[in-house]
Amino acid sequence: MNEKKLQKILSEFARKRDWEQFHNLKNLAISINLESSELLEIFQWKNREDEKLLMDVNCVDRKRVENEISDIVTYAIRLCDILKIDLETAMMEKLKENGEKYPADQVKGSARKYDEY
Amino acid sequence: MNEKKLQKILSEFARKRDWEQFHNLKNLAISINLESSELLEIFQWKNREDEKLLMDVNCVDRKRVENEISDIVTYAIRLCDILKIDLETAMMEKLKENGEKYPADQVKGSARKYDEY
Amino acid sequence: MNEKKLQKILSEFARKRDWEQFHNLKNLAISINLESSELLEIFQWKNREDEKLLMDVNCVDRKRVENEISDIVTYAIRLCDILKIDLETAMMEKLKENGEKYPADQVKGSARKYDEY
Amino acid sequence: MNEKKLQKILSEFARKRDWEQFHNLKNLAISINLESSELLEIFQWKNREDEKLLMDVNCVDRKRVENEISDIVTYAIRLCDILKIDLETAMMEKLKENGEKYPADQVKGSARKYDEY
Repeated sequence: MNEKKLQKILSEFARKRDWEQFHNLKNLAISINLESSELLEIFQWKNREDEKLLMDVNCVDRKRVENEISDIVTYAIRLCDILKIDLETAMMEKLKENGEKYPADQVKGSARKYDEY
Repeated sequence: MNEKKLQKILSEFARKRDWEQFHNLKNLAISINLESSELLEIFQWKNREDEKLLMDVNCVDRKRVENEISDIVTYAIRLCDILKIDLETAMMEKLKENGEKYPADQVKGSARKYDEY
Repeated sequence: MNEKKLQKILSEFARKRDWEQFHNLKNLAISINLESSELLEIFQWKNREDEKLLMDVNCVDRKRVENEISDIVTYAIRLCDILKIDLETAMMEKLKENGEKYPADQVKGSARKYDEY
Repeated sequence: MNEKKLQKILSEFARKRDWEQFHNLKNLAISINLESSELLEIFQWKNREDEKLLMDVNCVDRKRVENEISDIVTYAIRLCDILKIDLETAMMEKLKENGEKYPADQVKGSARKYDEY
């Protein structure tokens, strides 16, 4: 993914519509939250068996998942652009921290939070 | 961002901890939702003036934003990996749809939803 | 539940702390959202079997559920107070609407949304 | 609000539709989360001035607020019913805890979290 290019496209998209005025950080955080709820809604009443149907590329709900994930990451990239955050660097740092908080040999097979250890 | 590499790192991270059993789609959608709430929490009581402080690279809340955004996109990439969704393609398609739903000359300066036009 | 009494207690609680300035509708809606995420977090990695443990009155997570539900309904009552909404009336009306949207004999055993019928 | 009566009505509503199978705790927590996002969505792009319009009883968005708040509290009461939680008692206890965490004379006019003091 070329984030720099995406940031430019998305910022241009907002500028052309005069939407920058709405894109303060709080509103963008709300938007990410709402899109992630729309994603969750797809799975609200689904069980494990239902989930398998989403592997079919013609599945309507699969297309919905693609759309909601796209909206989430789009707003995330927009927020990073405004705050001048380098997303990939941030992700690699966070992953390193998680690796230290959850050492593989200690947490194997457990979903408890690190502060419960 | 090299998603393929990231997907591999994240999938390996889960595999080593035997966490794949927890990473069904519903749980991943819940996780994205919770991380995006942690992001929103940072802005819960902030106003526009407070937001400006986040531009300072030493700001504690800026680091929190980086962490939460990273978690969100990490889970999003994990979900795309499981469903074999190409995230960048999905984002470009969604952006194209949004461009058609919200033509720049018609929506300029307005935040109404497309179904209100 | 005596909502009028509760509204008065909660409004007094905010007034004494000079918190009314933060209790605009958007912030209250965000707060309900965050509390409901804290509720969901309790169930993030739980399956049906784990849920049964919550029936035990000494279960730590049961106490957490009580706290989060309380926060959610507290903010909901606060928001109703500010907007002069009678919550019980609103709930009974909504329930009536739901009864019409989802006639028992048509939706029996199905969790589909009403617009899918 | 007569919660006992409401609990009975809501439980009957679910039973008649054979929906109890879907009303596990995780699904109910997800539902509260989604309804609270629908509530938040109403305020997504609104500022303080826009909020005032909601005081008008004929305002369309006011009716939406009533509906979403009703859904949230309805699911909350349903969850309390299943877990045999007395909601009003839980709320009064939580309020007492909050009163101790945030003494009026110390937190006056500040929205910081108690662990920041």
